[in-house]
Amino acid sequence: MSASIRVTLLAGGYGGARMAHGFALLGDEVALTVIGNTGDDLELHGLRISPDLDTVMYTLAGLANAETGWGVRDETWSAAEMLERYGEPTWFKLGDRDLATHIIRTARLAAGDRLTDVTRHLTRALGIGAALLPMTDDPVRTKVRTSEGWLNFQDYFVRRRHQDDVHEVRFDGIETARPTPEVLAAVESADLVVIAPSNPYVSVAPILALGGVLDALRAASAPTIAISPIVGGEALRGPAAQMMRSLGTEPSARGIAAHYSGRYPNLVDTLVIDETDAAEADAIRARGIKPATAGIIIATDEQQRRLATDLLRIAGLTPR
Amino acid sequence: MSASIRVTLLAGGYGGARMAHGFALLGDEVALTVIGNTGDDLELHGLRISPDLDTVMYTLAGLANAETGWGVRDETWSAAEMLERYGEPTWFKLGDRDLATHIIRTARLAAGDRLTDVTRHLTRALGIGAALLPMTDDPVRTKVRTSEGWLNFQDYFVRRRHQDDVHEVRFDGIETARPTPEVLAAVESADLVVIAPSNPYVSVAPILALGGVLDALRAASAPTIAISPIVGGEALRGPAAQMMRSLGTEPSARGIAAHYSGRYPNLVDTLVIDETDAAEADAIRARGIKPATAGIIIATDEQQRRLATDLLRIAGLTPR
Repeated sequence: MSASIRVTLLAGGYGGARMAHGFALLGDEVALTVIGNTGDDLELHGLRISPDLDTVMYTLAGLANAETGWGVRDETWSAAEMLERYGEPTWFKLGDRDLATHIIRTARLAAGDRLTDVTRHLTRALGIGAALLPMTDDPVRTKVRTSEGWLNFQDYFVRRRHQDDVHEVRFDGIETARPTPEVLAAVESADLVVIAPSNPYVSVAPILALGGVLDALRAASAPTIAISPIVGGEALRGPAAQMMRSLGTEPSARGIAAHYSGRYPNLVDTLVIDETDAAEADAIRARGIKPATAGIIIATDEQQRRLATDLLRIAGLTPR
Repeated sequence: MSASIRVTLLAGGYGGARMAHGFALLGDEVALTVIGNTGDDLELHGLRISPDLDTVMYTLAGLANAETGWGVRDETWSAAEMLERYGEPTWFKLGDRDLATHIIRTARLAAGDRLTDVTRHLTRALGIGAALLPMTDDPVRTKVRTSEGWLNFQDYFVRRRHQDDVHEVRFDGIETARPTPEVLAAVESADLVVIAPSNPYVSVAPILALGGVLDALRAASAPTIAISPIVGGEALRGPAAQMMRSLGTEPSARGIAAHYSGRYPNLVDTLVIDETDAAEADAIRARGIKPATAGIIIATDEQQRRLATDLLRIAGLTPR
């Protein structure tokens, strides 16, 4: 049997999970490692919740709720009803199946396990072949500044339904947080690094802000391909386009190129944009990034698998 | 409005909950305080579980599962299914609604709240008028010695389905655990102290073993009435009769009298036995305890209410 192509994916929640799923559908052709954002993590009812890791995990396990884009399918809400009776805040919906994940994570962290080890335990128990790595085992918490002041990310994103304009983003704890050895090894050993079509400010940026990650990516022999989270001026999902506007970047594929080339020089080799945005290729090339087109709307399994295959082809890595 | 009769009930789970419910059904006539056994408590999946307190709480809230005698009715089991997928032990069944209770208890204890305060919060949120007091805020853990050696109580009771003969019982932590000020005050201010028809060895004994409780009960002006957990030589529920045999006491109403008078002299003034056991009255009187008969099988609301009323009458406390 020939060796698998080692793909390391930098991922947020929704877009990252779908991209991960595309590579997972290629089976043994790809050895997938997902580096997941943990800046969105929160504590609720004393439980440690890692929304982005869980969205990737549930998606890879075939348990994701396709309608909502978060949580587990065939979910029940009995505990949430009781939590409400007990006067607990209920703006962050926790289903019963989902709760089991948070209960185990919380217990194992309290027992001294690293989030990395807990995540490995959970993903293996669910039969996931890919490695899912939290970007760090240290606490990092994303905050966004809006007209309401600085908000915890989930306050902004879920409780206030990302209605506010974001004027600034920061990652509390990022100065002392360290990427795990597993994360650095996954970058160093990769044949291909992919930046998922996730929100560049709040999903990808926390990973890249961790000390050592950017250096490791630039030093890595693997090419880095980013996928635009913007198609036709709109975000594939969530507030990315609105954030680009309020943060001073045009919400477009070329705006994404401007963002990555301006903020992270010499990081992204190729930006994959949607076929419908092909007219922006020259503007992207002008930023020093190679443009490539593909179908980047990846709602279905087949679209996900095709984009994963296209990325390998774009990187010159045909399945062996 | 005239003052309510202050009843303080020493309670385990099943029998204690039903007796508490009988008094609660009397409404404002009775101000009920339940002192609940916490020797059965356990930690599972990092959660702190208080089975006896919860059985009383769910029963008083009208949420109890009447079929099983534990847990919440209209329960769902989604989290348990996921916990099993994650390889967690599943011999102690935790329903989704029930989990909400344990999650909040665990979080509040971790935040430094006393179990007494957490229990007050939970019971008030469920609209319970009675005061439910854990016997102590300190850790006490009941262990039973069987042919398998010393077992944690829930290992014996739930996992091994109380099939083993119990040769010895101990309460780890009992030497340093203290009854709460609320418990002592509830004993001192009571008009009537009732020992529920709960297992005398593992439900009532932990409460009485707490330093200061027995002295407070003996010093209290209120009479102490115990209800036999044995009817016609059989336990109302659970392993009480089998335990009595293996611990050397005849499983009968008069055996209960022998137990209480021998182990706790000058504690129980009156033992209420079932009408069908009326022939044992003289043997009970010979132990220095007044016998009284009533219907002590209290499966239904009406039976529970009637026994509560009978107890007030037996104590000479007619509803004001």
